[in-house]
Amino acid sequence: MYTASVTAPVNIATLKYWGKRDKNLNLPTNSSISVTLSQDDLRTLTTAAADETFEKDQLWLNGKLESLDTPRTQACLADLRQLRQNVESTNSSLPKLSQMKLHIVSENNFPTAAGLASSAAGFAALITAIAKLFELPQDMSELSKIARKGSGSACRSLFGGFVAWEMGQAADGEDSKAVEVAPLDHWPSMRAVILVVSDDKKDTPSTTGMQATVQTSDLFAHRITEVVPKRFEEMKKSIVEKDFPKFAELTMKDSNSFHAVCLDSYPPIFYLNDTSKRIIKLVEGINKESTIAAYTFDAGPNAVIYYDAANEDKVLSELYKSFGHVQGWKKTYNAETPIQGVSRIIQTSIGQGPQVTKESLINTETGLPN
Amino acid sequence: MYTASVTAPVNIATLKYWGKRDKNLNLPTNSSISVTLSQDDLRTLTTAAADETFEKDQLWLNGKLESLDTPRTQACLADLRQLRQNVESTNSSLPKLSQMKLHIVSENNFPTAAGLASSAAGFAALITAIAKLFELPQDMSELSKIARKGSGSACRSLFGGFVAWEMGQAADGEDSKAVEVAPLDHWPSMRAVILVVSDDKKDTPSTTGMQATVQTSDLFAHRITEVVPKRFEEMKKSIVEKDFPKFAELTMKDSNSFHAVCLDSYPPIFYLNDTSKRIIKLVEGINKESTIAAYTFDAGPNAVIYYDAANEDKVLSELYKSFGHVQGWKKTYNAETPIQGVSRIIQTSIGQGPQVTKESLINTETGLPN
Repeated sequence: MYTASVTAPVNIATLKYWGKRDKNLNLPTNSSISVTLSQDDLRTLTTAAADETFEKDQLWLNGKLESLDTPRTQACLADLRQLRQNVESTNSSLPKLSQMKLHIVSENNFPTAAGLASSAAGFAALITAIAKLFELPQDMSELSKIARKGSGSACRSLFGGFVAWEMGQAADGEDSKAVEVAPLDHWPSMRAVILVVSDDKKDTPSTTGMQATVQTSDLFAHRITEVVPKRFEEMKKSIVEKDFPKFAELTMKDSNSFHAVCLDSYPPIFYLNDTSKRIIKLVEGINKESTIAAYTFDAGPNAVIYYDAANEDKVLSELYKSFGHVQGWKKTYNAETPIQGVSRIIQTSIGQGPQVTKESLINTETGLPN
Repeated sequence: MYTASVTAPVNIATLKYWGKRDKNLNLPTNSSISVTLSQDDLRTLTTAAADETFEKDQLWLNGKLESLDTPRTQACLADLRQLRQNVESTNSSLPKLSQMKLHIVSENNFPTAAGLASSAAGFAALITAIAKLFELPQDMSELSKIARKGSGSACRSLFGGFVAWEMGQAADGEDSKAVEVAPLDHWPSMRAVILVVSDDKKDTPSTTGMQATVQTSDLFAHRITEVVPKRFEEMKKSIVEKDFPKFAELTMKDSNSFHAVCLDSYPPIFYLNDTSKRIIKLVEGINKESTIAAYTFDAGPNAVIYYDAANEDKVLSELYKSFGHVQGWKKTYNAETPIQGVSRIIQTSIGQGPQVTKESLINTETGLPN
């Protein structure tokens, strides 16, 4: 039995991906930028195994057997097997892994019910584990095109540090890939705290929401043709120059812009709730004298707040006043008036890209999860 | 003592005014459209009196002495006195009202604490009462330019039915005025229900909010140069053709667009809260088979829902399920699950413009409020 295990991180966009120009290939209408979060706090561990005795491709996710029969997953597996076949065709002594069925076991170290988009880490781990198993020569940018087909934002989880997903122009998506803007060690003091906001309603799934926005928002075209391209260059520059106030302003503006085009969709899409808005006001208060914290919200009410380690006590002590009553803090501060609506916090930092690990989730005797 | 009394209506924009190109003259960055609501439910009654014995201009609003010393009110009084002076100069037998001080008494028939913008009705009544007192020959569009200086949206309260405020191009505002799109009797079956939403925070005042949006929203310029001009023509057409579904769609889209550019401001401005969003979802439910109701939200969380009398029971019975527990209904339906967050409803209809009335709020013996 051939096996390989990889861990992959979550990434949180600071310049949002919203809008597909090709739904099947997950090609975006705009380039995006993200920060990769530390795998100490949030990661997916995936073991991939190939064996001639396996009867079918199978996936166990967080202990449950899940379907691999989605068009997106099938597209990823087909691409990876094609690349393996190319390798095998140049060296006939290699095992024919491309012909074998795969067993894949995957686990998150964070609560999936928390509403954190785990699909990015999940697909990044899936693609890199199989690529490792197949000993593929392709670099991360090349593999990111495959991850992108699984889940758009997954492509950004193939790098650590600060990552851009260049939208590309080609119809087949060959130039729509993730690239490193700056590695983890360029700005290792970047920190993040996630405020997990309880929500009483089902969100609009992001694929559905994106399509609605593209088709119905009168402001959307202006966002992608005018606003985002300029912001993309400015944000990359702010990262290269480690200009936190500029990075923060661009991050907050882009979160607002993304939620604005959601609201401008018809019918309107709401991801922020009253608790999200209170968090925005709190961050505005923290930034009153100088901009030391940046909020961003994905397609849900959870807040991610970025800050530099130099300002950790300033930022966290302010947040603690309102959210000290929930779990997740690594250090305690003075609490004041609790704000309801946040169920837990996850205090984390910037992190590295996918890592090969010796930890395995598959029993090599049985080919089944440990 | 010379007196005149006038009542003026509230209007609720279906195409929103948001953004000033001249703050002092209240010149807007875009044209807007509104529906005038019935004075049976919402109106300001204003009596204006002039007498040689009055020592200074004075205003009593809802029983309280208020200042007339705001630049906006002073601009309105100066304009009206200038027009009176023009009249007096052509006929020396006329009393010199332009030289006398004014006593003005004003009362609303609706709760001012309800968060309904009463300044539109207030300025419309003030301007038309003094114009009546002065026996000015100007028509309502001419007077609307004066009302506009008091409060932008007040200019639209000088007409009944469906009203457009043409933004104009001139720097002095001479072409920025209200005009009738269609009178009340063109579409008298238009109805409205206002859901007064409780709010736990102070809103951003609209003048402040508008300036912030103009200066900081990256999407705003596109709204006013591309989105609104097209929608302005389409909405006028939908009114002329009495096409409720089209009128409703444009109304809801424009409310969303306005709140989207508020959210895109930096820092973001929020007027909708979670209760507002629940109301939007309720209206989406009511419109599931066909579009029979249109929500719109001004610079606050209150909802105004327009519908045609033909669908009154369908629309109100659905709303009653959630809000039957609050006061204000003219007929009861079956209640179901109360939604908290609405304190009362105001069930009303389309109405007429300012009306001269014999009801007076000033004692002609004393020159003081009755």
